[in-house]
Amino acid sequence: MADQAPAPVYPDARATDPVAMKWMVGSPPPPDKLIQWADDSWFRFPQTRWSWSHIRQLMPTLVVARGDGPVAALPRAERADIDAVTFQPIGWTASITWAQSLDHNYTDGILVLHRGRIVYERYCGVLTPEKPHIAYSVTKSYVAMLAAAMIVDGVIDENAPVATYVPELAASAFGDATVRQVLDMRTGLDYSEDYTDLRSPTWNYTRAGGFLARPAGYSGPQSYLEYLAGVKRLGQHGGDFIYQTPNTEALGFVLRRVTGQSLSQLLHERVQAKLGAEQDGYFSIDSTSSEFAGAGFNVTLRDMARFGEAMRLDGRFNGHQIVPKAVVDDIRKGGDRARFASAGYKTLPGWSYRSMWWVSHNEHGAYMARGIHGQAIYIDPAAEMVIARFASHPLAGNVNLDPTSLPAYHAVATHLMKAR
Amino acid sequence: MADQAPAPVYPDARATDPVAMKWMVGSPPPPDKLIQWADDSWFRFPQTRWSWSHIRQLMPTLVVARGDGPVAALPRAERADIDAVTFQPIGWTASITWAQSLDHNYTDGILVLHRGRIVYERYCGVLTPEKPHIAYSVTKSYVAMLAAAMIVDGVIDENAPVATYVPELAASAFGDATVRQVLDMRTGLDYSEDYTDLRSPTWNYTRAGGFLARPAGYSGPQSYLEYLAGVKRLGQHGGDFIYQTPNTEALGFVLRRVTGQSLSQLLHERVQAKLGAEQDGYFSIDSTSSEFAGAGFNVTLRDMARFGEAMRLDGRFNGHQIVPKAVVDDIRKGGDRARFASAGYKTLPGWSYRSMWWVSHNEHGAYMARGIHGQAIYIDPAAEMVIARFASHPLAGNVNLDPTSLPAYHAVATHLMKAR
Repeated sequence: MADQAPAPVYPDARATDPVAMKWMVGSPPPPDKLIQWADDSWFRFPQTRWSWSHIRQLMPTLVVARGDGPVAALPRAERADIDAVTFQPIGWTASITWAQSLDHNYTDGILVLHRGRIVYERYCGVLTPEKPHIAYSVTKSYVAMLAAAMIVDGVIDENAPVATYVPELAASAFGDATVRQVLDMRTGLDYSEDYTDLRSPTWNYTRAGGFLARPAGYSGPQSYLEYLAGVKRLGQHGGDFIYQTPNTEALGFVLRRVTGQSLSQLLHERVQAKLGAEQDGYFSIDSTSSEFAGAGFNVTLRDMARFGEAMRLDGRFNGHQIVPKAVVDDIRKGGDRARFASAGYKTLPGWSYRSMWWVSHNEHGAYMARGIHGQAIYIDPAAEMVIARFASHPLAGNVNLDPTSLPAYHAVATHLMKAR
Repeated sequence: MADQAPAPVYPDARATDPVAMKWMVGSPPPPDKLIQWADDSWFRFPQTRWSWSHIRQLMPTLVVARGDGPVAALPRAERADIDAVTFQPIGWTASITWAQSLDHNYTDGILVLHRGRIVYERYCGVLTPEKPHIAYSVTKSYVAMLAAAMIVDGVIDENAPVATYVPELAASAFGDATVRQVLDMRTGLDYSEDYTDLRSPTWNYTRAGGFLARPAGYSGPQSYLEYLAGVKRLGQHGGDFIYQTPNTEALGFVLRRVTGQSLSQLLHERVQAKLGAEQDGYFSIDSTSSEFAGAGFNVTLRDMARFGEAMRLDGRFNGHQIVPKAVVDDIRKGGDRARFASAGYKTLPGWSYRSMWWVSHNEHGAYMARGIHGQAIYIDPAAEMVIARFASHPLAGNVNLDPTSLPAYHAVATHLMKAR
């Protein structure tokens, strides 16, 4: 999302540690420690520091099974020196250490892979290695990878309009948008992804899907597909990049119609099972059991790191070609930087967006999957490094986390590239 | 539950096969194939044939993790001869085969262990070996086992009133009921477990817990504990056995208060992890994340069979003493048969109820865990046999399934006792 007004001040990570705050402790928890879905308390900071690791306790979900295969081991070679790596946050004059940055970002968990080995792994608050955490828009990068692979395989025509695959969307903004335009978020939608405005369409979208509770008397759309069908066109498709999550929701229906499978089945068969994932993941779903394709995947930190490692290794991991190399190559090459620039992301100068991945075009060729409140996969090919991070920052926009994250990632990458 | 009026006629198991009916197929499913929680369609037959295997897609849940240990293998020694075993259903003049009985019972899955080996395993409809199915009141037998073990270990005093452990219930019917009276369902509650009357308190109970959707304007209790606090006494405690699920709900709070753990944590640590379970299970939970202790556990067929096998082996399985032998011995010995007789279960003559297990007192010493719509663990010590079954019979009461189940189990037991 685009930059926002100066942020209000929130209590810091230590003061909002969800273990220390004793959220949901007790049977039942006392009223002031209770977090519920129906009253939206789960969606308020600092309760979110607990909620993001407990989505399944709050709403219906669809499992993304790991399957019966063996776990793909991630060898460990932990390096205590990483905590002391220093960097200068964007816009700061002082430097801080990597260890300090974790609190700045309200980190719930972070894992660094170097040449496939775990060199750093930390969990904060209520997150543990076994627990899936909501990936928010990192979900998009998983879902879009499935679509990009089917384009390479000739199963989906990237130049076909979405209505070819999802006729119910013919009269909506998506009707004449091509799959490629949707994948690169270069569609003209009458929509706004402004998380700071409670009247923003983004909230109606999540209420339609049942991710957020509906107010009394709600008479809006009852599912994601119904919501999408009501999105009108504003402007032309194929113009500037505009980050709008309904694009991924539409893409999800393309995938379902082409394969006859749910996104959960697809991610199970094509990703989690082949990755040798440690744990089952799961999706938040709407009242028709359609997954929240734009932001609803929940996965463990290690399994998200495995996916990042597969991307780093030209799509190949655990003996499987999980992502076609052509898809990885195309994402690394990036999207149209001029079309991206107009979106005005202050912390992402020179970046681009391709197939729902964020591409830095820096000297290491780094690219990312990014989700609100600090979810991230950061892949640095030159440093042979992958970082997976979950966080519960009080503010949705990554513009609030990037200053203490992006230079930290680059500093660790540079550090790892030096001989030990 | 007690016997009911003659049952209406329902379409048979073949006609209601949930795969053939294409429930929830499509993205989204067409309206006439859609099953939803909010409109109660999930709770209507024949939709229930799909729903009982997909509770997690319908409501919030709490995982009962299997943990990281190895799966305890169940060796296979399948016997094709079991399908042809014949028996005479209760009240019938004709005989049928075991294979035929599965359709009579709307079986979703059934597994027979003989001397710890799988001699028979079938899945029907949408159930698969990987999928948890709702165990309904078989849940009670898991939960009560935890309590009985803590009584043996001196952690819970079976003669103490429930209010000792759960002060909020002091003014309710449970206030002066002892843990033992609750465990044996010999409490005097102003309650009725009549599933055929939609005004029955049993439905208010499930609405309080959020298992069933609440009607518009609902102003009743918001959680299981709130519901329990409002249950008044009717008659005396310690009298006849009356099957009333709130007893298990109250017991659940005793367990939580004594241990400081959720039922999910307890079942994870003390049962599923030690059993070497294959899959994670899960609980339906209320808005405070309290599990539906009386009927809300979901588990795979094989993992339920492992639990039955542990009971058969004096509580010992997979190298762990999972249930104290004294607890198993006490359950096998049974409860007060005279106090049971007055409940009038036509298909259970001479049986008793002890610590939420049903005891046949037959010549094999068989005992059971039983849940509505046909969920069952049947343990036959003499035949060294355990049967685990999931079903989705149109009628709740097991009186409707027992005629084609209990004699079938006994016939297979007798068959297995003969030398092959």
